[in-house]
Amino acid sequence: MTDSDKYCIIMAGGIGSRFWPLSRNATPKQFLDILGTGRSFLQETCSRFEQIIPVENIIIVTAERYKDLVKSQVPQIMEENILLEPHRRNTAPCIAYATYKLFKKNPNATIVVSPSDHLITNENIFLETIVRAMNYAANHDVLFTLGIKPTRPETAYGYIQTNKAEKINIEGYEAFGVKTFTEKPDADLAKVFVDSGEFLWNSGIFIWNIRTIMNELESYLPEIANSFKDGTDFYYTDEEARYIKGIYEACNGISIDYGVMERTGKSLVMEATFGWSDLGTWHSLYVQSHKDEKDNVIMAEPALIDETESSIILTTNKEKLMVVKELDGYMVIDTPDVLLICRRNETSFKDAVTDLAVHELNKYQ
Amino acid sequence: MTDSDKYCIIMAGGIGSRFWPLSRNATPKQFLDILGTGRSFLQETCSRFEQIIPVENIIIVTAERYKDLVKSQVPQIMEENILLEPHRRNTAPCIAYATYKLFKKNPNATIVVSPSDHLITNENIFLETIVRAMNYAANHDVLFTLGIKPTRPETAYGYIQTNKAEKINIEGYEAFGVKTFTEKPDADLAKVFVDSGEFLWNSGIFIWNIRTIMNELESYLPEIANSFKDGTDFYYTDEEARYIKGIYEACNGISIDYGVMERTGKSLVMEATFGWSDLGTWHSLYVQSHKDEKDNVIMAEPALIDETESSIILTTNKEKLMVVKELDGYMVIDTPDVLLICRRNETSFKDAVTDLAVHELNKYQ
Repeated sequence: MTDSDKYCIIMAGGIGSRFWPLSRNATPKQFLDILGTGRSFLQETCSRFEQIIPVENIIIVTAERYKDLVKSQVPQIMEENILLEPHRRNTAPCIAYATYKLFKKNPNATIVVSPSDHLITNENIFLETIVRAMNYAANHDVLFTLGIKPTRPETAYGYIQTNKAEKINIEGYEAFGVKTFTEKPDADLAKVFVDSGEFLWNSGIFIWNIRTIMNELESYLPEIANSFKDGTDFYYTDEEARYIKGIYEACNGISIDYGVMERTGKSLVMEATFGWSDLGTWHSLYVQSHKDEKDNVIMAEPALIDETESSIILTTNKEKLMVVKELDGYMVIDTPDVLLICRRNETSFKDAVTDLAVHELNKYQ
Repeated sequence: MTDSDKYCIIMAGGIGSRFWPLSRNATPKQFLDILGTGRSFLQETCSRFEQIIPVENIIIVTAERYKDLVKSQVPQIMEENILLEPHRRNTAPCIAYATYKLFKKNPNATIVVSPSDHLITNENIFLETIVRAMNYAANHDVLFTLGIKPTRPETAYGYIQTNKAEKINIEGYEAFGVKTFTEKPDADLAKVFVDSGEFLWNSGIFIWNIRTIMNELESYLPEIANSFKDGTDFYYTDEEARYIKGIYEACNGISIDYGVMERTGKSLVMEATFGWSDLGTWHSLYVQSHKDEKDNVIMAEPALIDETESSIILTTNKEKLMVVKELDGYMVIDTPDVLLICRRNETSFKDAVTDLAVHELNKYQ
């Protein structure tokens, strides 16, 4: 495989409601610099992959409304590589669209598919893992998912049950057969999963060659696959958007995990040892962030915090003084038009407000 | 006494730090519409007095820095009646300045002196009380303070001990001789005061004729009195500001209560039955405000408040959504550049932050 056959598809269409009110429909999590690194998750994701994949081979799939955000945040990405989804249809149509469009240009592609809004640490291990998996996938008929060894019974993640009997060694990395995919188990089940030693967290990062994924899409999601296959004449033309709009209006939303990965016999999960978090909850942000001596995560400067413990204090206003006294285990999220104060263990803002009132939130979403 | 001899001196120079962060040095409490009536305390105070005193006889004493605020909030007040203090010197110099300047114009004035930032309810009783006291004071050598019957052992107020043996009846209103003035007693003492039945809250509203107050100023605060008396030639001229600057730089700050009212034999306290609060603390704002069924004072719209009790939720941003869950007895005060969250019973923001950090607050004061 030459470098010119290596591709990356970055999925950047999510609306990231779990970080509300910091994330909004208009600026979801992937476009935010939640950790204060100076770069958004999308920018971090792109620059990570640019180290191993030619920039002209990086494809971003996003929603139509985020087109300008993507172009302004990652201007190095070619315009024809920014694919716009007219509706949200989960990951399978997203991947199928990018795959069939890419096939028209390069039928020898080997592809890594990645979310745009995850935290990766130990970047060198991450890159090495991707390279090893791509090298293997380039000439093997397999569909890799990267699996992360769980460190806690997290209920917000997806889990992959491995088949330890079916194991291959790839230049020092272990990959296993796959028994099941389970999204967001309850706390008891998550504990059973972690204790069993059989389960890995589903990172949502996939690696395969283009012919294998097309075959499996055509086998398990033939309707979706054929819709995008039939569009071949329109890709890279003025007709593309209109054609895609028709497909998205007709097709059902389904994830690649359920639609393909769980059904195919070609799934392998590669155990990855880099640091990973999907940072999908305020709790996970809290876990990943630097804490002061009282276990507070203070993302505000200036701030006067007294008799306060285990709390998140965040404002998006860099000139605003936060004065907080006597809170324990709360989060205070101050944005220009929403102030959220609730316990840190609220899993989402939707739990923080009464059901009756949710309709009032529409303009703040 | 004709209407043209009735004057009102409104003291509007306070910095109102107790309502921080809503009040600031740049816009203290008297210029704010804290209760959401649509008018500031100063505007309410002026329009109350305009019902019984000719508008051209209303004098406002304020700090130089608030000149524009006063002119914009109460444009009906004559420019020559807006007196500017170059330094803060408590109430005695403030009253002496206004008194000696006024004397040059009208040596027959009868005057009510009033703070600008108090809450008055039962306005008709208030106005009737003032009128009765002015009518009496016009031709009696007395200095009235209005005293409010205490309803709780408030530690933030001043108390006046009455001499029940010295009692006069003024058209149905009772006035008593004065034994002592006590500022802000501790909780035990306040309870003794209230239980004794001898004490009234000091409203800071005074009524007297101009000759009586000048006499008493000259007897008990001769240095201050003579400084302002000596300025007679400069009042209403271009020289006034320069002359006043010199006096204020030299003179000490002292309250009219300690400097005159407690020492003179001419003090009488008139018992008033209108509703009064100096609204000097968040607690007093809470007490005076409309509460929801869970005893919350919500000064924010829209707001989604859940499992929250006995709290104050306030934002100055009329477009901002406040989402609060699980707070009990807190106050959340959101302003453009400060967010304060602490227990409602904090008596002032200064208790809400550590002493070490107070210097950082300077730019937010």
